[in-house]
Amino acid sequence: MSAMFKQVTIVGLGLIGGSLGMAIRRHRLAERVVGLSRTEATLRVARRRGAIDTGTTDEQTAVREADLVVLATPVDLIVPQAKRLSRLMRRGSILTDVGSTKGSIVNALTGRLPRRVAFVGAHPLAGSEQRGIMAARAEVFQGSTCVITKTAASDPRAVARVRTFWKRLAGQVVLMSPERHDRLIAQVSHLPHVLAFCLVDATSSDALAMAPRSFLEATRVAKSDPALWAAILRDNRAAILQALGAFERRCRRMRQALDGGPSRRLARFLHHAQAIRCVLRDT
Amino acid sequence: MSAMFKQVTIVGLGLIGGSLGMAIRRHRLAERVVGLSRTEATLRVARRRGAIDTGTTDEQTAVREADLVVLATPVDLIVPQAKRLSRLMRRGSILTDVGSTKGSIVNALTGRLPRRVAFVGAHPLAGSEQRGIMAARAEVFQGSTCVITKTAASDPRAVARVRTFWKRLAGQVVLMSPERHDRLIAQVSHLPHVLAFCLVDATSSDALAMAPRSFLEATRVAKSDPALWAAILRDNRAAILQALGAFERRCRRMRQALDGGPSRRLARFLHHAQAIRCVLRDT
Repeated sequence: MSAMFKQVTIVGLGLIGGSLGMAIRRHRLAERVVGLSRTEATLRVARRRGAIDTGTTDEQTAVREADLVVLATPVDLIVPQAKRLSRLMRRGSILTDVGSTKGSIVNALTGRLPRRVAFVGAHPLAGSEQRGIMAARAEVFQGSTCVITKTAASDPRAVARVRTFWKRLAGQVVLMSPERHDRLIAQVSHLPHVLAFCLVDATSSDALAMAPRSFLEATRVAKSDPALWAAILRDNRAAILQALGAFERRCRRMRQALDGGPSRRLARFLHHAQAIRCVLRDT
Repeated sequence: MSAMFKQVTIVGLGLIGGSLGMAIRRHRLAERVVGLSRTEATLRVARRRGAIDTGTTDEQTAVREADLVVLATPVDLIVPQAKRLSRLMRRGSILTDVGSTKGSIVNALTGRLPRRVAFVGAHPLAGSEQRGIMAARAEVFQGSTCVITKTAASDPRAVARVRTFWKRLAGQVVLMSPERHDRLIAQVSHLPHVLAFCLVDATSSDALAMAPRSFLEATRVAKSDPALWAAILRDNRAAILQALGAFERRCRRMRQALDGGPSRRLARFLHHAQAIRCVLRDT
């Protein structure tokens, strides 16, 4: 079976970019994986760890022969990079990203790139609180869901190719609008991060000293890179504020149930949430 | 080496009671582990799984020859059971519990039990969202912290024995007042449970369908038994409401930082929480 792409170029060799390179090579989805990084040191590690075949710090060298360019950089860098790199890409090539927000990125790029390059937004719901090429693993995407965004301006063939690409790497691919992505992801990823940071900050050091597993798990993602997450949260703030509002209403309801409400109200609240949570498939 | 106790009786053979029996037998802390349960079926499973040596549904048979009786039943049952069973216990024996709240239990029992029996409150910070004897495992307490409560009315020798007992089973034993226990545990265990229930309830079903690992981990404890947790939350509601208040203030601060605040404020908030979380030892 011939590879899907002759050359895939990955821009940014952190946890996600590095893992993506390893996964592409393991699944033989490209004849050649090229890495673009700001530093030679990262390229050396990425080569040694099997994340890329070759690497370069030069943008033109990296993308001019690529069939697929994947931006795996922080969300606030994606739009300027997409604009710059697309001018160096060849006719018929596809530009995609793995950013945790989609609305602002897709909107900023629609109609703003050379017509010979198709942009398709994507967001694999995978990764961890770790960062950097040393944390990369080929299995990161295995069994996960990847969201691919589709708008009226999307090139259907490019969407289909990116979909097939992620179908091979992740367990499941879902197509939706960038706005819907941002609304749903605010609830199940961005809000849990917000709550983890808030919970850690609200806890006294005496209490932290005896934190059990429930606390450690609930706050694991508060170990995530603060700069990366500040950019994500700012970018998707409208949807996050809405999700936070819905959550805060539940906190008030809980407060009322605890604070003198009839005891059956509390039990009903817990039963309802427990029944919902118990049907979710744990990874 | 002779065992610490001739007979330990465990009242309630659920996840914690069953695991405790297995751990006592593995560490040879008692010559005989007796189980008290309402149903013969549970006793049979507990015997087969190696959680007890013998079992009975009769309270007097279960406790009259015990050196140590451990109440491993839901928190709202502990006080009436302690009062009833202590009248059947022999001189010099120790009564203890594993309840997730301590203030109301210790206060309700102080000065209310026969003088020949010493009561020592305890709370091993271990377990999981699972329940029942089938989920019991001898390793549940390994490496965990056990809080033992001490008050002006405590029998120092009984406290010392319960401390040694838990020192062998858990990694770490901490002595503190029941009130301090409730205040700290509200922050690191009860509040995370409250937030998990609230987060699940606040999430739309569309979003739940693509819940990534961050969401699943943050809400794992929402799978916990609702009746058990309604009793715990009600019992410790004052401390929980205080912890919830501190948490809600951070949510408001986060909201302000997202909603038009200077972008450095958000980054500072995340940096601060991340630094705190990163020094906690994950299990």
